[in-house]
Amino acid sequence: MNKENFALSEKIVSAAYVRQGSQARRSHEQLIRHLLEQGKCPEEGWSESTIELFLNELAVMDSNNFLGNCGVGEREGRVASGLVARRHYRLIHGIGRSGDIAAVQPKAAGSSLLNKLTNSIVLDILKVAGVRSVASCFVVPMATGMSLTLCFLALRHQRPKARYIIWPRIDQKSCFKAMITAGYEPVVVENVLEGDELRTDLVTVERKIEELGAENILCVHSTTSCFAPRVPDRLEELSTMCTKHNIPHIVNNAYGVQSSKCMHLIQQGARVGRVDAFVQSLDKNFMVPVGGAIIAGFDEAFIQEISKMYPGRASASPSLDVLITLLTLGAKGYKKLLSERKEIYMLLAQELSTLASAHGERLLHTPHNPISLAMSLDGLQAESDKAVTQLGSMLFTRQVSGARVIPLGKEQTISGHTFRGFMSHSESYPCPYINVASAVGISKEDVTLCMKRLDKCLKALKKELNPSKSTSPVSQLSHEDTTD
Amino acid sequence: MNKENFALSEKIVSAAYVRQGSQARRSHEQLIRHLLEQGKCPEEGWSESTIELFLNELAVMDSNNFLGNCGVGEREGRVASGLVARRHYRLIHGIGRSGDIAAVQPKAAGSSLLNKLTNSIVLDILKVAGVRSVASCFVVPMATGMSLTLCFLALRHQRPKARYIIWPRIDQKSCFKAMITAGYEPVVVENVLEGDELRTDLVTVERKIEELGAENILCVHSTTSCFAPRVPDRLEELSTMCTKHNIPHIVNNAYGVQSSKCMHLIQQGARVGRVDAFVQSLDKNFMVPVGGAIIAGFDEAFIQEISKMYPGRASASPSLDVLITLLTLGAKGYKKLLSERKEIYMLLAQELSTLASAHGERLLHTPHNPISLAMSLDGLQAESDKAVTQLGSMLFTRQVSGARVIPLGKEQTISGHTFRGFMSHSESYPCPYINVASAVGISKEDVTLCMKRLDKCLKALKKELNPSKSTSPVSQLSHEDTTD
Amino acid sequence: MNKENFALSEKIVSAAYVRQGSQARRSHEQLIRHLLEQGKCPEEGWSESTIELFLNELAVMDSNNFLGNCGVGEREGRVASGLVARRHYRLIHGIGRSGDIAAVQPKAAGSSLLNKLTNSIVLDILKVAGVRSVASCFVVPMATGMSLTLCFLALRHQRPKARYIIWPRIDQKSCFKAMITAGYEPVVVENVLEGDELRTDLVTVERKIEELGAENILCVHSTTSCFAPRVPDRLEELSTMCTKHNIPHIVNNAYGVQSSKCMHLIQQGARVGRVDAFVQSLDKNFMVPVGGAIIAGFDEAFIQEISKMYPGRASASPSLDVLITLLTLGAKGYKKLLSERKEIYMLLAQELSTLASAHGERLLHTPHNPISLAMSLDGLQAESDKAVTQLGSMLFTRQVSGARVIPLGKEQTISGHTFRGFMSHSESYPCPYINVASAVGISKEDVTLCMKRLDKCLKALKKELNPSKSTSPVSQLSHEDTTD
Amino acid sequence: MNKENFALSEKIVSAAYVRQGSQARRSHEQLIRHLLEQGKCPEEGWSESTIELFLNELAVMDSNNFLGNCGVGEREGRVASGLVARRHYRLIHGIGRSGDIAAVQPKAAGSSLLNKLTNSIVLDILKVAGVRSVASCFVVPMATGMSLTLCFLALRHQRPKARYIIWPRIDQKSCFKAMITAGYEPVVVENVLEGDELRTDLVTVERKIEELGAENILCVHSTTSCFAPRVPDRLEELSTMCTKHNIPHIVNNAYGVQSSKCMHLIQQGARVGRVDAFVQSLDKNFMVPVGGAIIAGFDEAFIQEISKMYPGRASASPSLDVLITLLTLGAKGYKKLLSERKEIYMLLAQELSTLASAHGERLLHTPHNPISLAMSLDGLQAESDKAVTQLGSMLFTRQVSGARVIPLGKEQTISGHTFRGFMSHSESYPCPYINVASAVGISKEDVTLCMKRLDKCLKALKKELNPSKSTSPVSQLSHEDTTD
Repeated sequence: MNKENFALSEKIVSAAYVRQGSQARRSHEQLIRHLLEQGKCPEEGWSESTIELFLNELAVMDSNNFLGNCGVGEREGRVASGLVARRHYRLIHGIGRSGDIAAVQPKAAGSSLLNKLTNSIVLDILKVAGVRSVASCFVVPMATGMSLTLCFLALRHQRPKARYIIWPRIDQKSCFKAMITAGYEPVVVENVLEGDELRTDLVTVERKIEELGAENILCVHSTTSCFAPRVPDRLEELSTMCTKHNIPHIVNNAYGVQSSKCMHLIQQGARVGRVDAFVQSLDKNFMVPVGGAIIAGFDEAFIQEISKMYPGRASASPSLDVLITLLTLGAKGYKKLLSERKEIYMLLAQELSTLASAHGERLLHTPHNPISLAMSLDGLQAESDKAVTQLGSMLFTRQVSGARVIPLGKEQTISGHTFRGFMSHSESYPCPYINVASAVGISKEDVTLCMKRLDKCLKALKKELNPSKSTSPVSQLSHEDTTD
Repeated sequence: MNKENFALSEKIVSAAYVRQGSQARRSHEQLIRHLLEQGKCPEEGWSESTIELFLNELAVMDSNNFLGNCGVGEREGRVASGLVARRHYRLIHGIGRSGDIAAVQPKAAGSSLLNKLTNSIVLDILKVAGVRSVASCFVVPMATGMSLTLCFLALRHQRPKARYIIWPRIDQKSCFKAMITAGYEPVVVENVLEGDELRTDLVTVERKIEELGAENILCVHSTTSCFAPRVPDRLEELSTMCTKHNIPHIVNNAYGVQSSKCMHLIQQGARVGRVDAFVQSLDKNFMVPVGGAIIAGFDEAFIQEISKMYPGRASASPSLDVLITLLTLGAKGYKKLLSERKEIYMLLAQELSTLASAHGERLLHTPHNPISLAMSLDGLQAESDKAVTQLGSMLFTRQVSGARVIPLGKEQTISGHTFRGFMSHSESYPCPYINVASAVGISKEDVTLCMKRLDKCLKALKKELNPSKSTSPVSQLSHEDTTD
Repeated sequence: MNKENFALSEKIVSAAYVRQGSQARRSHEQLIRHLLEQGKCPEEGWSESTIELFLNELAVMDSNNFLGNCGVGEREGRVASGLVARRHYRLIHGIGRSGDIAAVQPKAAGSSLLNKLTNSIVLDILKVAGVRSVASCFVVPMATGMSLTLCFLALRHQRPKARYIIWPRIDQKSCFKAMITAGYEPVVVENVLEGDELRTDLVTVERKIEELGAENILCVHSTTSCFAPRVPDRLEELSTMCTKHNIPHIVNNAYGVQSSKCMHLIQQGARVGRVDAFVQSLDKNFMVPVGGAIIAGFDEAFIQEISKMYPGRASASPSLDVLITLLTLGAKGYKKLLSERKEIYMLLAQELSTLASAHGERLLHTPHNPISLAMSLDGLQAESDKAVTQLGSMLFTRQVSGARVIPLGKEQTISGHTFRGFMSHSESYPCPYINVASAVGISKEDVTLCMKRLDKCLKALKKELNPSKSTSPVSQLSHEDTTD
Repeated sequence: MNKENFALSEKIVSAAYVRQGSQARRSHEQLIRHLLEQGKCPEEGWSESTIELFLNELAVMDSNNFLGNCGVGEREGRVASGLVARRHYRLIHGIGRSGDIAAVQPKAAGSSLLNKLTNSIVLDILKVAGVRSVASCFVVPMATGMSLTLCFLALRHQRPKARYIIWPRIDQKSCFKAMITAGYEPVVVENVLEGDELRTDLVTVERKIEELGAENILCVHSTTSCFAPRVPDRLEELSTMCTKHNIPHIVNNAYGVQSSKCMHLIQQGARVGRVDAFVQSLDKNFMVPVGGAIIAGFDEAFIQEISKMYPGRASASPSLDVLITLLTLGAKGYKKLLSERKEIYMLLAQELSTLASAHGERLLHTPHNPISLAMSLDGLQAESDKAVTQLGSMLFTRQVSGARVIPLGKEQTISGHTFRGFMSHSESYPCPYINVASAVGISKEDVTLCMKRLDKCLKALKKELNPSKSTSPVSQLSHEDTTD
C-alpha cells in the first residue's frame, strides 16, 4: 500500500498500529532495495512472504496484468487457465526478445527485471562458489547439452572453417550429442588410467590438435564433474594448450558448481590459459526442476554473443525457480548446503569403504573426484555374468535411486560412433563397479538407507547365486541403465 | 483412497455416504481412464479438482516423491524451496532422457506419462484445428525460433553439403536468426505486391533453387501467420516445388494453429507436395506462458529424428502448462475460443475500416491474412516525418499493447544482412501503416478500447501537428518497435 | 515497490517501461484507496491479482509477519505448518480482542483492517440487497443458530425477568435449539393454512403475549426464508405488535439476503415497527464455506452490545471468505447472481408444474415463498406408505442434492418438545410433498438435471409399486432427512 | 489412480516404472489406512504431498465436488470465488448438522470424516500431553471464552436453579465475559499472596459455596495457564471440593496443553475429584490461526451433550488447520516442540534474572507457573508514575510483542464488576512488573532479541527520566494493554 492508503487506514484502525504496519512493510522494501542496488544474492535468505510480495510486485509491472490494458497483438500474455496463471505468479511474457534472450521486453518490465536480477544473482553465486573472476553469465531454459550446442553454434561464426571438436571421453550421451547436434565431428580422446583414476590424456589431445590443424578445430570441450573413477579433466593444462594453439575452450561443468574443486579448476584454467565459456546445470546445482542451465564466461562480449544466438523469447520458468531458490536460501544457506555435501561425501566414502571390505570388494581410490565414488564388483562378476546387472535392477526396485552399476564390456553406438566399454569412460576398465554420489541436498539418511539396502542386495544376490539354494527371481527389470 | 481405506471410512462415518463418496471418486477416475485410453483432448473440459487430482497422482509416481526413496545420484529431483516444489506440483524431473527429449525416464514414471500424454493431446488438437493428416508431434521447451533451429540442425545430417535456406522474406528477427544460429545462409526472397498484399514470389524462389543447386539448399523455410499486409506464403505451390526439386520444406506456423486458414494451407501443402515439419508457438496459440513450441510433421520417423537431436533432458513446464490448459478447456472450449477469435476478427476489420474513413485513411485490403489487419497512415506521414512513430509511443503509453506502427524506409542490419523497409516485409511498401490483430483470447472490449484510444491519439496528434495550437509533448518514448 | 525501488529498477531495465509498470501499480492502489475511503463493495469486481496484492499487504501489517519481531507472549501468531500459513494468507491473529469481536488488535493492524472493512462492505451489500436503512452489522464466525443464541443472550441483560421466546413454528432444528441453548422456553405458535400456504398465526401470537405477560417474554423470534409451503412470517404485523407490547424482535433471515422479498419484509418491519436484529447465514447467501453469519440491525448501539457479548477473539476465516468473494464479484456481480436466481426460480416453478401434471400431482400454490417450491406426492402416498420416503433415498443416490421429501405424520421430539408432522411446519399438512429451491448460484443445468432424474425416479417407483412387475431394490438408504 | 488406470499407463510408459509408481502410491495409502484404523496422531509427521493427497481425497467425497451432482437445495456448497474454494481444499460444507456439531453430514462424507478424525487425533494428543484418562473431546470453531460459555449453557439444563459461578480471579476479560454472556453472576474469589505467587484461596471458595448454597452455584470455574505471578489454580483441592459439594467443575486450560504441569493438574483433579470439562485454545497450543478451541472431558455423555448444544453447522476451518498441523508435525514433532518450549523457559528465566540484577530489579519467584515469568519494575516506578507504562509503549514500538507491563493500581469495570489492581490478578500486588512467557514455538532468538531490546529500553528510560538530560519523546503510544 502507498502512503495515501496507509493514511486512510489510520482512520479505520488505530494510527499507531497502522504506522507500525507501514514500518513493517518498509523492512520488506529494504530487502528488495538492497537486492536492486547490489544485484547480489542476499546473505540471509528471505521469508516466503517477502518473496511472494516481490514476485507479485514484478507481475503487476507486466502489461498482461495492467488493469486498463487492451491487447491487439498476437502475443499479449493472455492465459486461459487460472491454474497456469497462478503457478507462474502471472508472469507470462517469458524472458528476452526476438533478438536476444537477455534483452528487455517493453511489454513486460517485471519479467525483464526478473531476468536481469536472476542473471545478476547467479553471477554472484558463481563467484561465491569459487570462480571469482567470472565476468558474465545468463540463465537459459535449456538443459546443459542443448546449452553446450548453443555455445558451439556461437563459435561457428568465429571459426567458419572448423569441423572438429576435441573431447576427452566422458560416457554421457547428451554431451556427445551436443556436438553432433551442432554439426561437428567429435574427436574422442580416450582417458589414461592412473591408479584407479581415469584422467585426461594431454599428450593425445595435443597430438590431435597438431594432426587436424588448429584452424579446423572449433574448440576443446572438457568436463569437470563426472562419475568416478573418471575424474575432472586437467583444466589448467588444457586451458594453457588452448591459449597456445589459439583454440576456444568450452567447459562442461554440469554439476560442478556444488564442488569447490571443480570451481577452482575453472578459475585456475581461466587464470593460466583460456576458458571461453563454462556451462552448468541449474537443477543439479541448485535443487530446482530440470530444464535450465547457466552459460558463463570471463569475456562479457563473448557471453553476450551467445545470448544473442538464441532466436526468440524463452521460458522464464527456470529463471523464476532459481531466483526463488536463491532468495530463499540466501548465500549463507547455499554455502551451508555445499559444506554439508562435502561432509556427507566423506561419510559416504567411509561407509562405502567399510561395506566394500565386508563383501570382499574395495572402494576405488579416486581422490580427484570430489562428488562421485565407485566400489568394485569383482566378486559379483566372478559369480556370474548377469549378477552385476541384476544388482542394478534390485537397487532400483528397492527405491535406491541414482546408484549406477557398470558392467564390463558394454558396447554402444551413438550417432555413428561406437563406444567400447560404454558407461565406464574407458575401453577396458579393469573391473565392474557401482557408483554413488554425494550431490547437493543429500542427507545422512540417504547414505544410511543406501548402505543398508546395498548390503541386503549383495547378500541376497550371493544367496541366489549359490547353487545350494533355490533361485528366486530377484530382478524384475531387464537391465538397462536407469540413471542416465 | 483405495478400497481398503474406503472400507475403514465406512466405520467412521455412515457407510451409505462413504459409498457415494467412493462413487464420486470413480467418476474422476473415469475421466482419467478415458484420457489414458484415447490419448485425446477430452471433448468437455475438466474441473480444476479433477486436474489437480490427476497431477498429484502423476507426481506420486516420480521417485523424488517416493516416501522410502534414498537418492545417491547426482540428479535426484531434490528441491530446496517449497514454493518451487508446489508450483510444479512436485513434478521435478523434467521430460526426456539424455538421448531423446521424448524418452521415458526410469526415475519418473509420472513425468514421463505427462510428457507422452501432452504430446498425444497436442497431436489431437492439431488435427482438430485443421491439419487432419499430421502424423507426429512433440512439445519442446524452446520458443519457435530455437525450435526452427533444431529442425534445421536435424536436416544437416541428411544434407551435409547444403549451405543455404530459401526464405520468403518476413520481418521478424527470430525467424531470420533461427537460420543464422543453425549456421546457414538465408536466401531472402522479396515478396511481390498484389493489390495491398505482399505475397510469395514463386518465380524468384524457383530461380534461386536453380541458381544455387538443390543439393546446396538445406530447405525452403516458409511462413503462414504474419503481420498484414504480408499474407501467408503460397504453401501449396512451395510444397509442390519442394517435391519437384527434392528439397525439404519447413513451415513456420508461429501463431497459425488458431486460424483454420493457416492450418488448411499446411494440410494442403502436405497433400499436394512436401512439408517436412511445421513449427508453432505454444504461448501464441494456447494462451500459456512464453517458452514452448510444437514441432510437428507428417512423417513420424523424421519428427522422432528431430526429437533425438535435443541433447539432454528438458523443462516440463511448457508441457505442463499446455496440458493443464487443454484439459481445462476441452476440445469444445478450444474450438469455442477459435470461433470467437474469428468473429472478433470480423468486428475488428469493420471497426478499423470505420475509424480509417473518419481519419481519411483506409483499411488495407488483405483478405488472405486471417489474423492481422493494417490501416494506412498516409495522412499522418504527410503532416510530419516523426508523427508516425509518435503514434506508436502514444499508444504504448495509453496501454494499447500489440499495436505496431510501421514507418517508411526503416533500415536494419541483422547478422550482416541489411533489410530495407524493415518491419514492412518489403523494401518499399507504398505507405506507412498500423497493425492490429485478432488473436486467440482477444475480447470485444479489447477492440472497443483500442479503437477509442487510437481515435483519441490520432486526434491529439493532429492537434499537436497543427501549428495554430501550442505543442504539448505527447510522446514519452523515443521510437522503437515495442511489439517484437 | 516504493518510489525508491522503482527508481532503482529504472537503472536495470528501461526507465520508460518501469514507469509504465509503476503506473500500473498505481491503478491497483487506486482500487484499494477507493475501498478504504468508501468502505463499500466496489461496483466492479476486482481481479485475483488485485485481491491477492491487497491481502498480502494486509498480512505484512500483522506482527507475526514483521521481519524483526520478537515474541514473548502466549499468543504470537506463530504457525507450525506452511500449508496452514499460506491458506490464510499469513493472517493468523483472527479478529477482535478479548473484550469485543469488533475491536482493533494492537498486534494485528492488517487483520483489524480486514475485519472492519469486511463488516463495512457487508453492511453495504445488505443495503444493496434491500434493507436500505440497516445501521450496523458484523460478521461472526458462527452459524446462524449460534448467532441467534448470541442475540438472545445479549437481550437477557435487558430483560432479566424474561423466560419465554415467542416463535412461529418452522421445522428446522437449529433455530429451535438456538433458543434452548440460550436457556429460554420456546413458545411454539402453529402456523395457519391459507390455501396451500402456511402463514403466521398473528392472533395466537398476540394472545400468547397477553397470556404470558410482555415482561416475561424475551422476544419474538420470526423467520423469513423457509421451505414451502411455509412462507416468510408476516413481519410487518409482528414488528408492529412488538412495538405495541415493547417486546424485542429478532428475525432469522437465514438465506433471505438473496431474495428481495425477504429483505423488503425486514425493511418494512423496521419502518412500521420493531426489528432489533436480523441474522443471516454467510454460506447460504454469499456462496462461501459454512460457518459464518451476519448479525445486523437498525440501532448501532444494540448491535455493538451483541458484538461485545462474544467473549474472546474469533476466527477471521469466514470474514476473509466473504471479503474475497464480494471483492471478486463486485456489487454488480452479486446483483447479477441475485437476478439469475430469480429467473431460475420462475423456470423451476414452471418445470416442476409441468412435471407434476405429467405424474398426476400438482405444484403447491405458494406465491409468498420466493425461494422454495413444493410439489404434492399424493399419488405416491396412495400407492404405499414407504414410497414417499423411498423417493428421497432414490434422489440422494442419484446425486440430486437438496431435494427434500416430506412424508405425512412424522413425529420428533427435540429438547423435550414434541413436534407432530415434523418437517412440514404443521401438525397435519394435507399432503406429502417434495421441496426444491432456487438458491443463489443455482444453474439452469441443475434444474434440467433435477427434473430429468425426478421424473425417472417417479416412473421407476411406480413400476416397482405395481404388483405386475418384479420389485427391484431401488432404495439403498434407510430413510432419513438428508437435507437438514 | 485406480488399478485400471495404472494398467493403461503401463501401455504408455514402461510397465516396470509404472509398477514402481503404483507401489509408491500405496505407501501414501498405507499412512492414510493407519490413520483411519487407529484414529491417532501418527508418530512421524507426514509430507505435504501425503497431506494434500489426503485432503483432495476427502474433498472428492463431498457432494459439491461430485461431477454429476445437481443441487436444488438452499445449501449446496457452491462457491463463488476460486480463491476461496482452493484455500479450503474445496471442503465447503463445514462440520456438523443442525442438531449437533459432531454429527455426520449426508451431503459431505469427506468433511464428516475430517471432523471425526480431527476430534480423534486431538483426543490422542491430549493424552500424549498428559491427560491420559480424557474420554472425549471435540474441536469447536469458537475461541476459548465462547467455548466456556457453551459449557455453562450446557450445565444450565442440569442446574436450572443455579445463578452463580465461583471463579478464582484471573484478570483476563474473556473468561469473565464468558460467564456474563451465559447469563450468570461471577463470584470473584481474590487470590492469596504466597511469597511472590498469587494462589487460589481455597478457604474463601468453600466459604462462598456454603454461603450461596451448592444448588445455586452452576459450577466452579478454575484456570490453569495464566500470567505470573498468578499461578495455576489448586486443581486437586478444587476438584475434591466440587465432588464433596456436588458442584460441576469447568477448567479454563487456555494455553495449558503445552505444559505438562497444567495437564498433570487436570489429570490429578479428575483422579481425585471432579472435572466436568476443560477447555483449551487451538491457536495458543497448536500454532494455528486464532478461532478454535477444544472442549474435553472425562465423561463422554456430558461432552456429547455440550456438542449438541451448538445449534447448527460450523466452520471446518479450525479443524482443518489443526488436522494439517498435527499430521505435519506428528506426535514426535509436537513433543519436540513441547520440550523445546520447556528448555527455553529455563533460558528465559535465567536471562531475565540476570537482566533484572543489572537493573536493580528481580525476577519474581513463581515456581508454580510453568510458562509465564515476571520481573519487578520497582526502580522504574520510583522514578516516575508514567515510566512503567512508557516502557510498555517503547517495547511495542520496538517490535517486542507479547511483553506485558503491569502498573500499580489500575482500576477497570467490566460488565458492572469493578476490578481493582486490574491486570495483576490482585487488588494490591506489592510491585509493578513486566511479564514475558515461553510459549510453544518460541525460539532462542526471540529470547535474545527481547532481552537486548528490554535492556536498551530500560537504559533509555533512565536517561530520559534523569533531569540532567534532555527529554526525548520515547513513547509513541498512549498507554493501553496491547497484549490482551
